[in-house]
Amino acid sequence: MSKQSIILLTNDDGIAAPGIFALHQELRRIAQVTVIAPYTERSAVGHAITIADPLRVWPYEKNGDFFGHAVKGTPADCVKLGYWALMEHKPDLVVSGINLGPNTGINTIYSGTVSAATEGSFLGVPSFAVSLATYRSPDFRYAARFARKLALRLLHKGLPRGIYLNVNVPACPEKEVRGVAVTRQGMALYREEFDKRTDPNGRTYFWLTGQKVNKESELEVDDGAVQSNYVAITPVHYDLTKYDFIDTLKTWNLKK
Amino acid sequence: MSKQSIILLTNDDGIAAPGIFALHQELRRIAQVTVIAPYTERSAVGHAITIADPLRVWPYEKNGDFFGHAVKGTPADCVKLGYWALMEHKPDLVVSGINLGPNTGINTIYSGTVSAATEGSFLGVPSFAVSLATYRSPDFRYAARFARKLALRLLHKGLPRGIYLNVNVPACPEKEVRGVAVTRQGMALYREEFDKRTDPNGRTYFWLTGQKVNKESELEVDDGAVQSNYVAITPVHYDLTKYDFIDTLKTWNLKK
Repeated sequence: MSKQSIILLTNDDGIAAPGIFALHQELRRIAQVTVIAPYTERSAVGHAITIADPLRVWPYEKNGDFFGHAVKGTPADCVKLGYWALMEHKPDLVVSGINLGPNTGINTIYSGTVSAATEGSFLGVPSFAVSLATYRSPDFRYAARFARKLALRLLHKGLPRGIYLNVNVPACPEKEVRGVAVTRQGMALYREEFDKRTDPNGRTYFWLTGQKVNKESELEVDDGAVQSNYVAITPVHYDLTKYDFIDTLKTWNLKK
Repeated sequence: MSKQSIILLTNDDGIAAPGIFALHQELRRIAQVTVIAPYTERSAVGHAITIADPLRVWPYEKNGDFFGHAVKGTPADCVKLGYWALMEHKPDLVVSGINLGPNTGINTIYSGTVSAATEGSFLGVPSFAVSLATYRSPDFRYAARFARKLALRLLHKGLPRGIYLNVNVPACPEKEVRGVAVTRQGMALYREEFDKRTDPNGRTYFWLTGQKVNKESELEVDDGAVQSNYVAITPVHYDLTKYDFIDTLKTWNLKK
């Protein structure tokens, strides 16, 4: 009997979210899946880690066939804690999702879903994040099946150390999905607005609202591919260095 | 009279931290400085933004000569809120710091200090983050003076859109600082440990502890430069795409 692969599954919508449940249904067909996920929604936590507070962990169960560890922490905490403390055997793959809403363009930077895959990659484990590009009446089934196929591929082929994948699935019916596009991260920015309000006690508060402007529509860009009903896969890494500016910066001759 | 430059100053150690105070003392010599910073410490929040809660803002004053906006939010929230809602005139520069502790290597990804500069860069404003490489008995004065010189340079020369600077200052006495090194982000990883403890009620909790392993000592790397008493300046950007893996990934011929 060959050794069964081990997947660490997490998300940032919380362990009770339907996206992680749908993904678990598919991944358990190909591997032993350990679910370690935030006990509540942690969206837009970025790559946060918890250092000033202890992490607490509770057992979680749903429908008698979904078991996991609910963590009072961020997606990155979940991966760290799973790898170093909770799992008896190290995972062969880290999967994060399925996120409700796209993680394309500069959202990649804000995304807790992606940060879990970043953390997996830090640990030298092949990792990917998967998001469904809608916020309403989501059907996670196709995205979950696609993630299973990709997981199988990664379990067999691996990924070079330091590279991980950010996957965004369009929310159209499966028969309208046009294919898989390998993409780059979009660079469209946001026009933000803050809605200034007054609370019942007369104090001011602000709500953030924002719209991406000048979205790139090319199929080579994550935003464009998903809009055109392609599954967008962007290979990403965690080296933020802008190498081609190093020589310019040296010519500044900055003195201590 | 020439128009005075406007700097948005923030941090992630909180508005009451000595690092932002020291930086303000220097920056106000060259510009009109608006301080907008988290009202409490927000370390290791990563690039978090607050979307599920309203943002609240309180006026803050220290010593009669340091005034600012204390925000119940993250460093990234502070920059967004300042730019879009609080500041009458858009800033010419965003400065984040001085952080207590280095933001080198993969810490760049976790850093709230750096995320504020990322946010400034999203907004098209030249931005930098500055950190002091010590956790104990910090003397921020040299780092603050260096940051003032760099700020002046950026106000005059600007930065290409999408590029910002991550500055780490060694904690040695000023006369031992050996110069300024233009660096890349270190790739050293952490060996984490979770200390498993039991609370007074008999429940388990975990504390994270971790050590960077295999730190790179070259002067071309942020970690190495700071260790050798150089000010390390790494040009960074927010495009996580691993471009040189795109063609390989295309050969996988992933099907929908």
